[in-house]
Amino acid sequence: MQKLKDKIITEGRVLSDTVLKVDSFLNHQVDPEFSVELGQELARRFAGDGVTKVFTVEASGIAVALTTALALKVPVVFAKKKRGTTQGKNSYSSNIYSFTRQESVDIHVNKKLIDAKDQVLIVDDFLAHGEALRGMAEIIEQAGAALVGVGIIIEKVFQGGGAALREKGVRVESLAPIVSLAGGKVEFAE
Amino acid sequence: MQKLKDKIITEGRVLSDTVLKVDSFLNHQVDPEFSVELGQELARRFAGDGVTKVFTVEASGIAVALTTALALKVPVVFAKKKRGTTQGKNSYSSNIYSFTRQESVDIHVNKKLIDAKDQVLIVDDFLAHGEALRGMAEIIEQAGAALVGVGIIIEKVFQGGGAALREKGVRVESLAPIVSLAGGKVEFAE
Repeated sequence: MQKLKDKIITEGRVLSDTVLKVDSFLNHQVDPEFSVELGQELARRFAGDGVTKVFTVEASGIAVALTTALALKVPVVFAKKKRGTTQGKNSYSSNIYSFTRQESVDIHVNKKLIDAKDQVLIVDDFLAHGEALRGMAEIIEQAGAALVGVGIIIEKVFQGGGAALREKGVRVESLAPIVSLAGGKVEFAE
Repeated sequence: MQKLKDKIITEGRVLSDTVLKVDSFLNHQVDPEFSVELGQELARRFAGDGVTKVFTVEASGIAVALTTALALKVPVVFAKKKRGTTQGKNSYSSNIYSFTRQESVDIHVNKKLIDAKDQVLIVDDFLAHGEALRGMAEIIEQAGAALVGVGIIIEKVFQGGGAALREKGVRVESLAPIVSLAGGKVEFAE
């Protein structure tokens, strides 16, 4: 998506070979109309795939998950985060490791909100190592629901999370796949 | 807002005299079109007040803050949460107490995202004791910005946070003010 790539180049800040900050429009300040456009583009890529629910994890994925769900006319569910591991009888849960926070986090979803009839599209702002997505996929499996695919705004291809998902046969669509941040320069895959 | 009150009655679950769960449409699963309607209603109440930015704190306020910002055609900023107290030189921050999680949380915002020219509307899904709002108001003050008002979806009037803000002269608009949850029954103020 060219407009997104342009915005990353103009407003993004490369802090290291692995860290890109897009605070000004994606995950600290959000440009609502642009967020709607991002959601429409993700929805377009999964239109006709029978998505019944969009699924994300709090917090920074909520905005684009909401606009994608709005375009697909389905509800959006967001997994909640809790430190440590807890297994409630009313929730599906998974333990993931946050490389950013360097701690384990438990993500959980009330069992009422995803069931075996659901066809779920996972949406998130970033895909790096893929830990959050692995946890969400686990929850979808626990619910007996089907995973339609994964829609991502910015994929850091060089961190391997996307490749691992694709090898498992998961369809991953990224609006801005980045192959390198080396030398302070953003290099896109396509 | 009648449609919201109806949804609270139909879908909400009163778990105790102080706890109302609205997981199915507001803060775990979100109905995107209804979220747009809620945002439009909050925007209508603050139309013409010169709002330049909508402000919320992650995570559950993000959806309605986004739709309010969309209707007002301004950016939305969300404060990030961190455990403990940290004071970065690049951020405004405030320490708040979460009654739900029973722990202190530091909320912070990059200084670039709110400045002295901003007229800020705070939006959140719930207003109870008002701790999150107090923290956000502090950050707005640190930035030298003006607080236009506070837009809330569900206010638990009996927990006093709204009264404290109104006493300080802050305009608080709640789409569903609840005066009591006693006996498992939701009683609205109006």
